[in-house]
Amino acid sequence: MDTERQAPTRRQLLHAVGLIGGSAAIYNMMTVLGHAEETRFDGPPNLSGARKGATVIVLGAGLAGMLAAHELEKAGYSVRILEYQNRAGGRNWSLYGGDKYTELGGATQNVSFAPGNYLNPGPWRIPHHHRTLLHYCKAFGVALEPFIQFNHNAYVHNADAFGGAPQRFKSLAADFEGNIAELVGKSIDQKGLDTQLSAEDLDLLKEALRGWGMLDENMRYTKGLRSSSHRGYALPPGGGVNGAPQPSDLFPFDEVLKSRVWANMAFFMNDEFQTTMFQPVGGMGMIGKAFAKQVGHMVTFNAKVSKIFQDKKGVAVTYTDTATGATTTAKADYCVCTIPLAVLSQIETNLSDAKQAAIQAVPYSNSVKIGLEMRRRFWEEDYAIYGGHSFTSQEIGLISYPNNNFFQDGPAVLLGAFASGMGGYRLAGMTPQERIEAALEQGSVFHPDSYRKEFVSGASVAWNRVPWTLGCCARWNEETRKEHYQTLVAVEDRIVLAGEHASYVGCWMEGALLSSIDAITRLHKRALEA
Amino acid sequence: MDTERQAPTRRQLLHAVGLIGGSAAIYNMMTVLGHAEETRFDGPPNLSGARKGATVIVLGAGLAGMLAAHELEKAGYSVRILEYQNRAGGRNWSLYGGDKYTELGGATQNVSFAPGNYLNPGPWRIPHHHRTLLHYCKAFGVALEPFIQFNHNAYVHNADAFGGAPQRFKSLAADFEGNIAELVGKSIDQKGLDTQLSAEDLDLLKEALRGWGMLDENMRYTKGLRSSSHRGYALPPGGGVNGAPQPSDLFPFDEVLKSRVWANMAFFMNDEFQTTMFQPVGGMGMIGKAFAKQVGHMVTFNAKVSKIFQDKKGVAVTYTDTATGATTTAKADYCVCTIPLAVLSQIETNLSDAKQAAIQAVPYSNSVKIGLEMRRRFWEEDYAIYGGHSFTSQEIGLISYPNNNFFQDGPAVLLGAFASGMGGYRLAGMTPQERIEAALEQGSVFHPDSYRKEFVSGASVAWNRVPWTLGCCARWNEETRKEHYQTLVAVEDRIVLAGEHASYVGCWMEGALLSSIDAITRLHKRALEA
Repeated sequence: MDTERQAPTRRQLLHAVGLIGGSAAIYNMMTVLGHAEETRFDGPPNLSGARKGATVIVLGAGLAGMLAAHELEKAGYSVRILEYQNRAGGRNWSLYGGDKYTELGGATQNVSFAPGNYLNPGPWRIPHHHRTLLHYCKAFGVALEPFIQFNHNAYVHNADAFGGAPQRFKSLAADFEGNIAELVGKSIDQKGLDTQLSAEDLDLLKEALRGWGMLDENMRYTKGLRSSSHRGYALPPGGGVNGAPQPSDLFPFDEVLKSRVWANMAFFMNDEFQTTMFQPVGGMGMIGKAFAKQVGHMVTFNAKVSKIFQDKKGVAVTYTDTATGATTTAKADYCVCTIPLAVLSQIETNLSDAKQAAIQAVPYSNSVKIGLEMRRRFWEEDYAIYGGHSFTSQEIGLISYPNNNFFQDGPAVLLGAFASGMGGYRLAGMTPQERIEAALEQGSVFHPDSYRKEFVSGASVAWNRVPWTLGCCARWNEETRKEHYQTLVAVEDRIVLAGEHASYVGCWMEGALLSSIDAITRLHKRALEA
Repeated sequence: MDTERQAPTRRQLLHAVGLIGGSAAIYNMMTVLGHAEETRFDGPPNLSGARKGATVIVLGAGLAGMLAAHELEKAGYSVRILEYQNRAGGRNWSLYGGDKYTELGGATQNVSFAPGNYLNPGPWRIPHHHRTLLHYCKAFGVALEPFIQFNHNAYVHNADAFGGAPQRFKSLAADFEGNIAELVGKSIDQKGLDTQLSAEDLDLLKEALRGWGMLDENMRYTKGLRSSSHRGYALPPGGGVNGAPQPSDLFPFDEVLKSRVWANMAFFMNDEFQTTMFQPVGGMGMIGKAFAKQVGHMVTFNAKVSKIFQDKKGVAVTYTDTATGATTTAKADYCVCTIPLAVLSQIETNLSDAKQAAIQAVPYSNSVKIGLEMRRRFWEEDYAIYGGHSFTSQEIGLISYPNNNFFQDGPAVLLGAFASGMGGYRLAGMTPQERIEAALEQGSVFHPDSYRKEFVSGASVAWNRVPWTLGCCARWNEETRKEHYQTLVAVEDRIVLAGEHASYVGCWMEGALLSSIDAITRLHKRALEA
């Protein structure tokens, strides 16, 4: 990773190289230097020189809190963690058969998935450039397997397109690209193209349009084996006497536009969703469990924090044991608070008005996930869909196919909803049973023959009903960033906040970890100055 | 799979539905009926009614031959297989440490990869729609894992672009799409667009261009966090005080065109390379081994066939035991010949002139694969590349990163070349040692710091030097198809040919299997008529 740590120097160097050798030299130099920045992770923090006996209270045993505790203890601090729940991991969490979950409002679900099956209510996929998380997964022995994010063969459904019938992503994407390529080609021929390209480059552009958009020799996107090799065949190539393939009909371009497939195409090109992605073998919660193995000895569970006060001498945290009802005040020299803002905003503190305003300022997203256990993998067996998502304009947002145990017989859990926005609120307003029914009803659009027939049982988590977060994750916008972000993340005397909400990688575990490293690095520096 | 077996009926039905309800009804109906055809596989062949005691000689213990033998034996035929090599599997083959391989010309390689590492000289990836192969993998207990075909974060190198510096696929693809979207947007504004779209649909197209091409509010593709979210950041989002991301510079569009990234984009949209792809755990050769377990009792190894003659009574196959030199003539009622055409064309037969002309007519592609064992997975650790390919305009064609044991310490084998055409011939003309050197030299363009430094050992297979195939696989073109294909695949008296060369899925294992099923089904029918 060394070549990726030298951003400022590198930039200066590239500037100098550019002055001497022009753009080609810059590109060459970029290659030598290790290309674009991929990560902010520089390795575990260096916290050397900690004062012996200095104490830290960490609030919250999610990933940010556990990483802080782990690294601070390694550095020599005496650390304890207070955790509201009776388990560590926070939003890093998997629900298995036998688990019981009670949401705000009192509804309790008893999960009855078969052994090995799970729902990841929170995070469920790891980008390859989330190097902090990948580093600690390796360090803590978490086995990872590919998460199939992008699947050409899954469906896109939009109620306003194709009379409400879903279509394979590959066919829609191929037709979108083919039509776009044809349009550009026509513009070139009509000299209607406003471009700086030379005549030679225009020829190259035409070649590109033909090759990318599968245009025919007349620069038209037409029905034939060429377009079918991208969008799928009416009859695919086979063997022997009747092996010849037959081309498929193209979709009308206006229907392709109405399907809004371009949004899915852009989604797959998003930095956070580019291949290769990963998931832990056995459920996302394996990460929380692996972290907990490192810091378990420091955690006090069932500790509901009600008050965080600091003065010149230290920090006092008052908490109630939710099992016994006993209230205690714990003291330490410093505090790393990773409590989600939606909860922290309800806890009494003597933080500055500006800090409290920042804590109040950031809204939390809602989101609902529903796991549906099916008797068999009909999406694999009958539809040749292995992992990935089928998207819909309905409230469930998408259904996502499991990436573990491909080809296995027996029951498997697919994600029956990943709803946010209005759809999320609507589903959150339902009882768990009603949510399952909605998921079955809406998801049936993709697999009408099998969806209800193969259904066994379901489980759901509506994040604005999760007692210990009261929402899914922090949703900053440009204005709140400008006004509150630096205030939120600044060390205030003896207290620092950490978590995905204190990062620009919001809603991702990586954000929680990067924030945690940054927070404890600054807190440590403060401690050394004290 | 039932819904996918009714193509003709379905087409008639769709036609009828269209007459009544229009296009929306057709689309709805297509959904109900199970969408586009995905495969020609209808399940294992039904060969009931075989005459007791009827005998079949199968020539070649590759996948086509072994499947034929397995299904014919199941049906009641008495089957034996003659195989030239001392192992079954044919081109389905993995080279492991300890293996020894001698190519035409006499060069012998002793493979010294670490335990568990391998090179797949032939097939190496399985499309999700190759249902025949997937069926038998499951039936015969072959464990499969994802093959990462598409990787946004791998490189594209073209000697004519960017002064010869490789760039990440994601950045090139994002800039290609952004520039194309901008061009179309401008054409719309200048009324230079020749399209049938309504004003409403044109607005939707503009929204699509903005959303797909990451255009700014002025419909321009510009440097900013929006374009960087696809192409990569100069500095990615982080946590804490310095978490804000910084956008990356766009590439000049003419350099993007010169990189020919569109060809890679089209490649990933190709039916045969669309996600999700798979590979056997432990090397592609595990499939050949699993098939061999089913048919091993029927195989005579080291049998070099020199003559295939048939008459009214049966088929006589003359072969030499390459171990002992003894020559034997084996007789049977029928023969399934899966010998690659490049070899079969050199064997004496009394097949018709037309059949022999067909056998001679099909050229075989060359192709060279080189495996390079590296001391550590620097592509994962230093470059965040997990699986997928980096493409180059150099002779090696590409390098491909292993998809097994992600994140593992210790040596791993990457594919250092997958060369064809002129590059393939050039590499095939070299000694194995020279090939390694060429692969190291050319592959270093992607990973200059590590490639030579971490190299341990290599192995190569040049398919036109493979004694038992004399080429990689059959390359039909439109003319040879028209003139020779039906002749080649037709049952001629008691003999039928099978293999990837007797299919429209050439160069794929699926083609070999589909061809085999079709061939034995027709041979069985002929036998019943006899």
